[in-house]
Amino acid sequence: MAQRHLDPGTAHTADAVLASYLRAQATEFLRALRQHRESGAAGETAGAARALRRAARRISGTLHTFRPLLDAEWSDGLRPELAWLSGTLAQEHAYAERLQRLNEALHRLTAANRGGPAGPPAPRTEREAAPPARETLTLGAAKAAALLDRQLTLAKTRSHSTALGALGSSRFHAVADSVAVLASEVPLRGEDIELRKLAAAAENRLTEAVAALHDTGHPYNPDADTPWHHVRLLLRLHRYAQEVAPEDPASDIRREENRKEDEAAHALNAHRDAAEAAGAAAQAARTPRIAPATAYALGVLHADQRHQVEAARIAFRGAWQREAVGTP
Amino acid sequence: MAQRHLDPGTAHTADAVLASYLRAQATEFLRALRQHRESGAAGETAGAARALRRAARRISGTLHTFRPLLDAEWSDGLRPELAWLSGTLAQEHAYAERLQRLNEALHRLTAANRGGPAGPPAPRTEREAAPPARETLTLGAAKAAALLDRQLTLAKTRSHSTALGALGSSRFHAVADSVAVLASEVPLRGEDIELRKLAAAAENRLTEAVAALHDTGHPYNPDADTPWHHVRLLLRLHRYAQEVAPEDPASDIRREENRKEDEAAHALNAHRDAAEAAGAAAQAARTPRIAPATAYALGVLHADQRHQVEAARIAFRGAWQREAVGTP
Repeated sequence: MAQRHLDPGTAHTADAVLASYLRAQATEFLRALRQHRESGAAGETAGAARALRRAARRISGTLHTFRPLLDAEWSDGLRPELAWLSGTLAQEHAYAERLQRLNEALHRLTAANRGGPAGPPAPRTEREAAPPARETLTLGAAKAAALLDRQLTLAKTRSHSTALGALGSSRFHAVADSVAVLASEVPLRGEDIELRKLAAAAENRLTEAVAALHDTGHPYNPDADTPWHHVRLLLRLHRYAQEVAPEDPASDIRREENRKEDEAAHALNAHRDAAEAAGAAAQAARTPRIAPATAYALGVLHADQRHQVEAARIAFRGAWQREAVGTP
Repeated sequence: MAQRHLDPGTAHTADAVLASYLRAQATEFLRALRQHRESGAAGETAGAARALRRAARRISGTLHTFRPLLDAEWSDGLRPELAWLSGTLAQEHAYAERLQRLNEALHRLTAANRGGPAGPPAPRTEREAAPPARETLTLGAAKAAALLDRQLTLAKTRSHSTALGALGSSRFHAVADSVAVLASEVPLRGEDIELRKLAAAAENRLTEAVAALHDTGHPYNPDADTPWHHVRLLLRLHRYAQEVAPEDPASDIRREENRKEDEAAHALNAHRDAAEAAGAAAQAARTPRIAPATAYALGVLHADQRHQVEAARIAFRGAWQREAVGTP
């Protein structure tokens, strides 16, 4: 297999830039890992785990986008292992955030029901007054909150154990060894391909996926979320590629694009979080022997989160269309 | 009490125009009543009841807006009776429409869940797949539909009996007698007030109520609906006043305003219908001993209709802002 380890100062520019980025991310990965092992407080551990995931995602994404420049067998072997690792480490945090999101939503929904500013009383001559919706919801919301707390805390605890187990496994040690190799010598193929060309291909894949998005008009269909989740991953790959091979990093246009990509990424994260929170509410509603009021509140909560999914799509569109205008 | 019955051809213009409008509506009321009594088929009866309500609303609204021109005691006595009548006659139709609206929403929600166009499968490496929401909803939707059908059909049947009872009551005969008086001689006070001035006051009340509307940010609070229902009634009064004393009826601006008021009225009707449908879903969820899946589907349905309430407000704002631009 054609493979060349970078000898700094002599290799052509693309290789040097790519190797430097990967070495930096690998070093960051190892630093975060050391910090994770040494940390005592929960907050410290969580910060180290976040840094570990962050570096793992960047290494994995870079191996993917710049694959033609790298030893294919080596990077194809490492990528799924990095995905497994960052996926495993993300779970605990994801459950904690989901619980917080659902608690906030329930609070908002029932606060609304306890009454807000009401206008002047209007004559309702033609129809009889609507039955009070608030009682049904307030009744079930507390029970729904308790049920979600129980289920998501359990899932979080399990994820914590799984993550601890993973970090002690031989599978993880093999990943850490590979990353340690990367920190000293990046397995390059010595191909003469411009980084910008590969970064542009990543951007094209993103642009095409965004163009293929369509509003299905089926706001409650979780299958329709999939292309949006896919765009979220492609946007991430595009942004990592920009980190490796930035296009006019100091220009006003690029700064403006970065700002808008931040907004788009934020909307897609909110989209993912709302979709998964809606799923969690639906799953909780399938718990046997729950009270009807609990199930009712979970139904309202589910629909509320699906509403947020739609709102996130609109926010993404808004950010993205502004970006298209800014593109030279 | 100063009161003058209109002698056509001699009275001043405002009185003549007002009396002519009221006589026409009273005649229409009596025609619809005759038709209602003679009709056999359900469709015919419903059509006659609609015409009866339509005329009753117009007479009542006109007595209200142009009150300074009319015998106050007489019109203040008749107005609540007309409101009682049109309210009583509206119930049956309202329940039938509410049931249809909720059935359509349930159909839409579960059709969405049976799957729509799904995009390409995306890798979901970081988080585990969301639990399937569709099963919970599909399970409960059929039961929720059956429950709503039972409850709203019962309410509709009761309203039908109440309406029949009302039409045979001495209270109704007194209303019909008053309207028959109106068809021949309108009880005018002989005041010299321009119709346009009173119509403008009605328009001002509408404009002020619209300006006082604010988005409460509490989409689930039915109390926040009240000012919107009030605007709906004020828009109706404004439009009836325009029928009595039209402002440049042939002008392009007026035609454009009519079109936009149609849109605004449509949005406010949708707002009212969605708010009441949401209330019906919440009320059904309070039925003792329903299955959790039923309650869950009713929760989703409630939130869906509250979402429609919000959408109707946005639609109203859109129509109304365009109208403001068109106003000279």
